[in-house]
Amino acid sequence: MHSISELQQVIIQHLNNRQVPQEPSNLYQPIAYFLGIGGKRLRPVLTLMSCDLFDVDIEKGIPAALAIEVFHNFTLMHDDIMDKAPLRRGRQTVHEKWNVNTAILSGDAMLIKAYDLLSRCPAQSLSKLMIAFNKMAFEVCEGQQYDMDYESYSNVSEDDYIQMIRLKTSVLLGTAFQFGAILGQCSEQDLINSYEFGVNLGIAFQLQDDILDVYGDPEKFGKQVGGDILENKKTILAINASKVADDREKEILDRWINDKQPDTNRKIKEVTEVFTKLGVKEITKNVMHQFAQKAFNALDNINVAKERKKIVNEFANDLLIREY
Amino acid sequence: MHSISELQQVIIQHLNNRQVPQEPSNLYQPIAYFLGIGGKRLRPVLTLMSCDLFDVDIEKGIPAALAIEVFHNFTLMHDDIMDKAPLRRGRQTVHEKWNVNTAILSGDAMLIKAYDLLSRCPAQSLSKLMIAFNKMAFEVCEGQQYDMDYESYSNVSEDDYIQMIRLKTSVLLGTAFQFGAILGQCSEQDLINSYEFGVNLGIAFQLQDDILDVYGDPEKFGKQVGGDILENKKTILAINASKVADDREKEILDRWINDKQPDTNRKIKEVTEVFTKLGVKEITKNVMHQFAQKAFNALDNINVAKERKKIVNEFANDLLIREY
Repeated sequence: MHSISELQQVIIQHLNNRQVPQEPSNLYQPIAYFLGIGGKRLRPVLTLMSCDLFDVDIEKGIPAALAIEVFHNFTLMHDDIMDKAPLRRGRQTVHEKWNVNTAILSGDAMLIKAYDLLSRCPAQSLSKLMIAFNKMAFEVCEGQQYDMDYESYSNVSEDDYIQMIRLKTSVLLGTAFQFGAILGQCSEQDLINSYEFGVNLGIAFQLQDDILDVYGDPEKFGKQVGGDILENKKTILAINASKVADDREKEILDRWINDKQPDTNRKIKEVTEVFTKLGVKEITKNVMHQFAQKAFNALDNINVAKERKKIVNEFANDLLIREY
Repeated sequence: MHSISELQQVIIQHLNNRQVPQEPSNLYQPIAYFLGIGGKRLRPVLTLMSCDLFDVDIEKGIPAALAIEVFHNFTLMHDDIMDKAPLRRGRQTVHEKWNVNTAILSGDAMLIKAYDLLSRCPAQSLSKLMIAFNKMAFEVCEGQQYDMDYESYSNVSEDDYIQMIRLKTSVLLGTAFQFGAILGQCSEQDLINSYEFGVNLGIAFQLQDDILDVYGDPEKFGKQVGGDILENKKTILAINASKVADDREKEILDRWINDKQPDTNRKIKEVTEVFTKLGVKEITKNVMHQFAQKAFNALDNINVAKERKKIVNEFANDLLIREY
């Protein structure tokens, strides 16, 4: 079995050594650029960890792991267009550095590349991998659509929100981890357990990200603290705040939401104060812990010796105990 | 074996009867709308025809045929954004009827749908179908990229142009026809022959389309005659015209290309006159016939009784003898 950092290195090496066609350069250069921006490669590491867990040679799992990572980057490239995001991990997004058409077409080619990698997986598992991957891919699109739809909704419930992040971000982690089980030709029950582990871990991770966006240490959190507040994002904190706020607090929140040219520091400060007073951090932490618990239960239920689950456990704990 | 119109009906029925998810409607409605706009369904018919040719039950070929058609429509939906096209077959394009983000995301979901259909093909052929499909899909993206790149090139050669249309439009026809051969588990030689038939037929068809865009009968040609001239498209006619034009004719062509607010009728009339004088219609027809000949040769070489090729022959002839 491999350590997390060993698996990360395997992925990084394969991404660095990959053969990228040279021409047409306007199609392939943006892909090389975007895959080179970096990131923690969490998702492909999940696939390789689950290969280790289910005793599948990780070499056999590499195309599947890379398919997951390339798919993830395809979604980021297209989401960046839709969100008009100028930066991704501190670097220019593709539609900014090139243009929207390039980001559309290079993104399309990345989605095709993900399937190209998938087609290199062992033939005996290909059909099952494809079915799982396609279901996930549709759901990620659905999640992105709900996310955009919710921008114009006045009322989004906590359940709606969690279903949205399940689709948009978590099913990808579930599928990434399930891939090892598929490659290991595991029982139906372990396919479900491994999927549930990844999905619930993903939801907990996203909820934690929502908390960190408001309460994170600016030195340690990669993004601007308060970014979600500035963008009036309907995160789980904002949803719960508007649920428990009294008239006076509602008025403060609404005033900032409707202020077209706010003093940004004051907006972050005052909205955060309302959030803190209403205890939405604790509410969200509770929900987050419920999903984390579901993830760990699913991991416990996987029919593999406890000893073999140590690294996965450690990975999940590291992911969910970020400082804030 | 089935007639062409029977095969068309099979495709249309399957497209009409397909189950489309209801929610989120902003993701799935544009797909239903776009697939419902119509079109001749040439590409999936090619797949079913080749199933018939290679003695594969067409029921077995339907997922592959639909994958080809859905992929084709995905490329149209995204190309329409890139080309800022307001209309497709006389109906509003998706980015016009909804918006650009919707057209990006619904297009993505269609590409996934194409692979979802592919994954329903017989397991014993899945790997080969995927490899052929992925190669084609990359090439279609490359063709679209070259097409966009060439807009800003001052010099595009006839070879460049033919390579561009081969990638952008013809390899899809080649793969569509090859799919029947893959499903029929044919010899390597027949896989090549069937692919070559489709690709060369596609190039001839596209060259004919370029001719019709200038010389077509407005009553019978679906698009505006002279559209390519108005858009200063570097079609094979324009490329050959600028190759054989003398200084006087070059000056007329350049003047119209650089006129930002031309009298459109006069522009079409005068450029067409130059084309006609230079004989570019005949030059293009010659090139077109060479590719048509390659297609028919490839069909002749397929190791199947001549009698079985009658319908394919008829289809190709119909396609290439449109009135103008």
